[in-house]
Amino acid sequence: MERTKKPLHIVKIGGDILDNKDRLSALIEEFSQLKEAKILVHGGGKMASALSTKLGLEVEMHEGRRITSKEQLEVVCMVYAGLANKTLISSMQAKSIDALGLSGADLNLIQAEKRAVQTIDYGFAGDIVQVNSSRIKDLVDLGVCPVFCAITHDNKGQLLNTNADTIASSLAVAMSAHFEVCLKFVFTHEGVLKDMQRSDAIFEEINSTDFVQLKKDGVLSQGIIPKLTNAFDALQEKVQEVRIGSSAIINHDKGTKVCL
Amino acid sequence: MERTKKPLHIVKIGGDILDNKDRLSALIEEFSQLKEAKILVHGGGKMASALSTKLGLEVEMHEGRRITSKEQLEVVCMVYAGLANKTLISSMQAKSIDALGLSGADLNLIQAEKRAVQTIDYGFAGDIVQVNSSRIKDLVDLGVCPVFCAITHDNKGQLLNTNADTIASSLAVAMSAHFEVCLKFVFTHEGVLKDMQRSDAIFEEINSTDFVQLKKDGVLSQGIIPKLTNAFDALQEKVQEVRIGSSAIINHDKGTKVCL
Repeated sequence: MERTKKPLHIVKIGGDILDNKDRLSALIEEFSQLKEAKILVHGGGKMASALSTKLGLEVEMHEGRRITSKEQLEVVCMVYAGLANKTLISSMQAKSIDALGLSGADLNLIQAEKRAVQTIDYGFAGDIVQVNSSRIKDLVDLGVCPVFCAITHDNKGQLLNTNADTIASSLAVAMSAHFEVCLKFVFTHEGVLKDMQRSDAIFEEINSTDFVQLKKDGVLSQGIIPKLTNAFDALQEKVQEVRIGSSAIINHDKGTKVCL
Repeated sequence: MERTKKPLHIVKIGGDILDNKDRLSALIEEFSQLKEAKILVHGGGKMASALSTKLGLEVEMHEGRRITSKEQLEVVCMVYAGLANKTLISSMQAKSIDALGLSGADLNLIQAEKRAVQTIDYGFAGDIVQVNSSRIKDLVDLGVCPVFCAITHDNKGQLLNTNADTIASSLAVAMSAHFEVCLKFVFTHEGVLKDMQRSDAIFEEINSTDFVQLKKDGVLSQGIIPKLTNAFDALQEKVQEVRIGSSAIINHDKGTKVCL
């Protein structure tokens, strides 16, 4: 007989939260009240673009993904693994969350491979090939809260830039072997908007049939489509629940629930 | 009867090694051959100063210590905890060293307090008040190699900049409760130079009496004096052995041995 798995919450936060002191402190307050096992995943794209501008480096994006030149890789390592991650860790420790900042290179937790050049050369962008879930479980079982930034490596000495939404859903899928995983994408809106032009009405639930239709009808914003795609992928791979919304979804059944 | 403690090697590397691909790869090769328990500590001051210059920020030093403004704190967090630390971790993992990058904020491992303003205001510089040695021991016992950058925190949400030599000697003192600690300061010379103008002759050993005399005679460079002071402090607090020299000291009894 299979034992009941314990719950694990994987919360991904967007760059627009990291960027704003009040939003960040509200988020950490919410997160500190979540008493079950938890993992935080963050990006920092807006901060990385701001630093690039200061350094006179051009930021090139393709379909919302950063083209990661050698210089851009240095920028994202500095911003994601350095400033953003350690600011989070220090604020979380102050709220008695036993946070440990991690990249995929640390303890070889997330191994990726450099994306093959097809029509677009994404540079040092990494596609995840392996998540060391039993090792992450050991940390979680010790009461540690892993905080992952959006940096991975190829285990041959090359750091790589990996989309934070993808890291969150890959972690959710891998950790489902050990936990009942609830994946939460926290961003600036209350949920998936019914109308891109207005932020006051959200979908309470979206299933995969709705998703196909909503995409067809052009209702969804470009930004939300990859998030939802990641969400459906995760649900198909045994992740228990996926929600998208503001920091209120961390402790409450709010926002948009994504269902198969 | 006291049980014999296991050896632990704490190796501190300077910024001029991080900066140079060949030196760094030689260092990691040496370090990977050290089969006993080990911890790496690194700074990155030269890289931080280079980034400051690119950003048009002024670098202010006083007696070799950085005056850490809010902007400089961001720079050192980006460089030490981000680029330098993750470059090391990824290179070490490629050599099968199970490295885990850490700041003092992670797991609240090294708590510091903001240095009080006396004649000089060092800004966000942190003086160490507590090292969580039993937690670091747990990591080391799991076969993990902790890699500390020179960032600490006050456990109230403030990150702080702490000298890497001081972090290394404080770690050495704290870990002496659990291990026979050997502290190794690796830099560009073969050891402590007998003559600042020539790099071919080094002291094989320096004791505290020699140190007083050498300082009086003006034989020692300004850079080596705080390193030696840290070394004598560590030896007085039960650290087993201290050596200063090139990466050859990691696996061999070379360089300058510091004795009480």
